[in-house]
Amino acid sequence: MLTPEEALNQIFLHTPVLPSETVDLEQAEGRVLTEELWAQCELPPFDNSAMDGFAVRSQDVGEASKDRPVKLKVKEVIRSGGTPRFQVESGQAVKIMTGAPLPLGADSVVMKEFTNSQENQEVLILRAARKGENIRSKAEDIQMGRSLFRARRRIRPYDVALLAAQGFKTLSVVRKPKAAILATGDELVSLSEPLAPGKIRNSNGPALAAFLSRWNVPYLDLGIAKDDSLELEERLKDVFSLADVLIISGGVSVGDFDFTRTVLEKLGVQEIFWKVAIKPGKPIFYGIKKGTDSDKIVFGLPGNPVSALVCLEEFVRPALEKLQGFTPAHPSYHLEGKVVNAYLKSKDRQQYLFCKARRSGKDWDLDILRPQGSAMLGMAAEANALAVAGIGIDQIHSGDRLLFRWIK
Amino acid sequence: MLTPEEALNQIFLHTPVLPSETVDLEQAEGRVLTEELWAQCELPPFDNSAMDGFAVRSQDVGEASKDRPVKLKVKEVIRSGGTPRFQVESGQAVKIMTGAPLPLGADSVVMKEFTNSQENQEVLILRAARKGENIRSKAEDIQMGRSLFRARRRIRPYDVALLAAQGFKTLSVVRKPKAAILATGDELVSLSEPLAPGKIRNSNGPALAAFLSRWNVPYLDLGIAKDDSLELEERLKDVFSLADVLIISGGVSVGDFDFTRTVLEKLGVQEIFWKVAIKPGKPIFYGIKKGTDSDKIVFGLPGNPVSALVCLEEFVRPALEKLQGFTPAHPSYHLEGKVVNAYLKSKDRQQYLFCKARRSGKDWDLDILRPQGSAMLGMAAEANALAVAGIGIDQIHSGDRLLFRWIK
Repeated sequence: MLTPEEALNQIFLHTPVLPSETVDLEQAEGRVLTEELWAQCELPPFDNSAMDGFAVRSQDVGEASKDRPVKLKVKEVIRSGGTPRFQVESGQAVKIMTGAPLPLGADSVVMKEFTNSQENQEVLILRAARKGENIRSKAEDIQMGRSLFRARRRIRPYDVALLAAQGFKTLSVVRKPKAAILATGDELVSLSEPLAPGKIRNSNGPALAAFLSRWNVPYLDLGIAKDDSLELEERLKDVFSLADVLIISGGVSVGDFDFTRTVLEKLGVQEIFWKVAIKPGKPIFYGIKKGTDSDKIVFGLPGNPVSALVCLEEFVRPALEKLQGFTPAHPSYHLEGKVVNAYLKSKDRQQYLFCKARRSGKDWDLDILRPQGSAMLGMAAEANALAVAGIGIDQIHSGDRLLFRWIK
Repeated sequence: MLTPEEALNQIFLHTPVLPSETVDLEQAEGRVLTEELWAQCELPPFDNSAMDGFAVRSQDVGEASKDRPVKLKVKEVIRSGGTPRFQVESGQAVKIMTGAPLPLGADSVVMKEFTNSQENQEVLILRAARKGENIRSKAEDIQMGRSLFRARRRIRPYDVALLAAQGFKTLSVVRKPKAAILATGDELVSLSEPLAPGKIRNSNGPALAAFLSRWNVPYLDLGIAKDDSLELEERLKDVFSLADVLIISGGVSVGDFDFTRTVLEKLGVQEIFWKVAIKPGKPIFYGIKKGTDSDKIVFGLPGNPVSALVCLEEFVRPALEKLQGFTPAHPSYHLEGKVVNAYLKSKDRQQYLFCKARRSGKDWDLDILRPQGSAMLGMAAEANALAVAGIGIDQIHSGDRLLFRWIK
């Protein structure tokens, strides 16, 4: 049986990064570039004013002050988006708006707040100006041909702004994975069906869908399949032409009606691992199906809902990140807290413990909820933190310190 | 001029929480409940097996072991989703799958791994069983009528699982805001138009769209409007029937062609504030338009792209969170680093500084990029961190400590 670290390493090893596709810049936020991008133009594209004010020759107004204002003749008004018609000569100024091109001859802009221009033809300059003041020089931000972003960068909104300014209409990015989800089990009924004796509602389908929505991964909900190998095979036979990732819950344990693994094998899925030394969630399955443009990946999650969701966050999420070209990482338990109530765990499995974490001075107290049942959704909904206790630990004492993460 | 804290307090005061709407459970992830929810049924709905194995009477197998196995007669097999036909009498067992209802008479389940049943009619029990072992008792997780979630809870995927198990098909949640974005400026051209002299590309539109996508807020992109009050009025006259939040960039400063505020006033928008003591971004406008079901909110952001995006994250995002019923919070600068290069700032404004943060032992070094121009998108794309230096500070020395957050 693999340790969770070994299982994750297998997942990182076998899960491909998807091939590229071209998307509009507006859709590129959060996507990963598949090629390096180079500057297509200079930014700013021309010398322009950083302020609303008057473009002047700094020599003319080097001594200007409130008490000794300098009067200049205003030649024209240059709006943003406009172009200057005149050159600024000595004794002249041009009224200029933020972003408007600097006229020839001018080498400084005086902010409107330090001028006085009741008449349109004249302006009083009330403050000395330095050469280059309030001017954004052509190419000071981006020089032609420089590298903007390397391949594999994940595009942020600020990057979208730069690429828009550079005129990129489309980008080549890693394709987004499409997932298919299927819940299996004779006991499951959907939200629109009546509950009969012995039946329970399918909670895995809606919860997997909720996680995938949160992670911005589109999915196809295949609903519920019975514990019947022929039905399961029929339901799954076309799935790999529609989805890059298949996530099945249920039917992966050792019961007489657990057909998921045998059906997947029939469909050409190669088992990479089955069973990981974790609790909840031991009988998790991960496999690969060779594909033409890219390999497909398959997870068989336990049917118990708490187990299924723990496995989804611990193992499926990192795989979805790798598919999208994100830097693959193990799930992060970066907080630490003090257990307030002892707990007996199985020594040979890493256990994920649903807790209530509470501030205690600068520390966190971890109250381990109980029972930690793999079907206890009420318990899981009460928890705000998931703590982790590794293989080899069999007894958690009150006062022991555990790593944890928030349940969001 | 308001401080940024005062501005945020005004935003929290005037921005409403939107009214409720009913959504399917599958769409409820991340939404905020508008009513308390009570348990509609018990969970588990019936006593059931936690394991694949054999349901037995614990008295019969209290002494069983590998060396002294106990032989029991197997009455039937109960599948998940099935119902027991027989009562388990002394000397009898029933083969049972995980989740299947426990038959009457049985009070314990022995895991398959601790049994031996080559024949279908008989099973050898190889381990003693305690009463209640591997049984999930009816209602142990959720009792009928108990409170599941209070109003104002933000629904997590684990909560979706519980609500599905409880049979909730739809939920009443805070309506999602719809935003409208408009970039103004005679200098702006879209990505599909050619660039003429004096013009630049509209980068605010795509970048605002990227941030809104990331925040899962649907938006209507109104494109670009000229610096013309009649055109602007025409473009905006129907916007409040389509959107809850209007975000305009440009036209809010003191230039001769800055019409945003006067047009908004004509359209019935009440100014709450204009100008905040920040850099970049001083001339930010926030206003309210009285609406029938809910007040509409309006932000006028500076036209300079770096200023616009800083204001978007600092002021618009908290407003979008309040609209959705999230717990309103000031933007979080929770990391601290050491400045490695001195910087002169304006004493009377809070400055947001684009930095490169680098690990330095257990600390972070903050390299303040320069120039910190409000139109320097190349500079902003190079930064990985935004540090903040408050009002009253005029000189940042090498070695000074500043709070920062990651730019994502």
